[in-house]
Amino acid sequence: MYKKIDSTQNNLIKQCLLLLDKSRERRKQGVFVVEGQREIQLAIKGGYHIQTLLFCDSLFLNDISHFANTNTQIIEISIEVYQKLAYRKTTEGVLAIIQTKQHALNNLVFKSKTPLLLIAEAPEKPGNIGALLRSADAANLDGFIIANPKTDLYNPNIIRSSVGCLFTNTIATGTTQEIIDFLNNKNIRLFSAILQESKPYHLQDFTKPTAIAVGTEATGLSEIWRSQSVQNIHIPMQGAIDSMNVSVAAGILIFEAKRQRGF
Amino acid sequence: MYKKIDSTQNNLIKQCLLLLDKSRERRKQGVFVVEGQREIQLAIKGGYHIQTLLFCDSLFLNDISHFANTNTQIIEISIEVYQKLAYRKTTEGVLAIIQTKQHALNNLVFKSKTPLLLIAEAPEKPGNIGALLRSADAANLDGFIIANPKTDLYNPNIIRSSVGCLFTNTIATGTTQEIIDFLNNKNIRLFSAILQESKPYHLQDFTKPTAIAVGTEATGLSEIWRSQSVQNIHIPMQGAIDSMNVSVAAGILIFEAKRQRGF
Repeated sequence: MYKKIDSTQNNLIKQCLLLLDKSRERRKQGVFVVEGQREIQLAIKGGYHIQTLLFCDSLFLNDISHFANTNTQIIEISIEVYQKLAYRKTTEGVLAIIQTKQHALNNLVFKSKTPLLLIAEAPEKPGNIGALLRSADAANLDGFIIANPKTDLYNPNIIRSSVGCLFTNTIATGTTQEIIDFLNNKNIRLFSAILQESKPYHLQDFTKPTAIAVGTEATGLSEIWRSQSVQNIHIPMQGAIDSMNVSVAAGILIFEAKRQRGF
Repeated sequence: MYKKIDSTQNNLIKQCLLLLDKSRERRKQGVFVVEGQREIQLAIKGGYHIQTLLFCDSLFLNDISHFANTNTQIIEISIEVYQKLAYRKTTEGVLAIIQTKQHALNNLVFKSKTPLLLIAEAPEKPGNIGALLRSADAANLDGFIIANPKTDLYNPNIIRSSVGCLFTNTIATGTTQEIIDFLNNKNIRLFSAILQESKPYHLQDFTKPTAIAVGTEATGLSEIWRSQSVQNIHIPMQGAIDSMNVSVAAGILIFEAKRQRGF
């Protein structure tokens, strides 16, 4: 028997709603809310600590203890409370309060000897960040680095649009200068996706340790990325408008590197 | 001096609101609403007929007659009316009611002798369709074909997320069988992005007349695309989840074809 919460006015439920809504609260409290069995399992696998599990008995058909780790508090909630909290109101039946991670550059451990990294400067739209995380997972990148983050990684829309890839990727954040210093220390060649003084991406050699940096759709990469790169690169475009979604452009660049490496 | 509408209760304004909201109304009336100077200019360039222009004098600083074509009705609207209709409430200052096109397969005229086409089966999310249209424009494709369309092309979210590429692309729609017959008639080689009986995309030859077909993220391509292709293809994935946004996957496939063709 678990403790049960029936009221949407309960303090813990109010806390969850705040955590779903406000990045400030997530940062202050060092926790965030995740919905869904698969997502929670991926978070556990990714080394996240599950602080609290909230499950709705009438919807959740598994053994809740399989979703807990050490010291996880387990609470049953009524369907009314579940539907107040959940985006997918009639499925899944489980949410978790999970501790955030630090994502320090110095904690990055590369899987391969010739690492391949994707850097996104100040991406804003959760849907784009989710798509970038999915491509980074599919390419089995050694790291996904966000420079000068503008949007909190634990935004529920990012978690959802990443279909759990937020938890499977090795992610770091830092300022532009910190990241460039890090790349120099590790002898990783930086290619910046920027039009000025650039060459076509497909004529570059991405088989050595490589980082590919992309900027925002609105303003591109900031100046420092241009001057610090081994080579600036662009995707040749031949249309009337020549505008590409940032996650599509990043996917094309990353998978050209994968192709050159024979996957 | 143009006729002026001050009331949001005016019948034409009510019609615009319905057209923005309901695909059924757009289909029934054969018109749709476009917001923004650039988008309207691209629609004119793309051969669309501008039925009515609605401009707000306090926001719109150009000569409105430059945005009209033959028989375009021009109407001034108050800022209250503009803000009722517009998504970008404080900029642009102009909307248009524009006639839809048929997008028949038989009207497709290819720019090149070795056409490159992208086919998307039943894409639903406006953001994905917009991103596909942007990639199709950037690659200067000979055609973007939607099989069994589920979402009305003239949905305002598609127009917006395509940043006008809805008007710069050669677009056709049809049933799966119609499209496959069309490809066979034109001797265009079909590559279907589907996992079963597939080979890695980057080992295929896309330099001959080529169509690349992608399905939905949820269900992929329907069975007929598998059996009718020259070769089924997949993007090798090595992650924990191996899921990619459909517009990212399509971008990777199309730009591999462009790379093989030397852009």
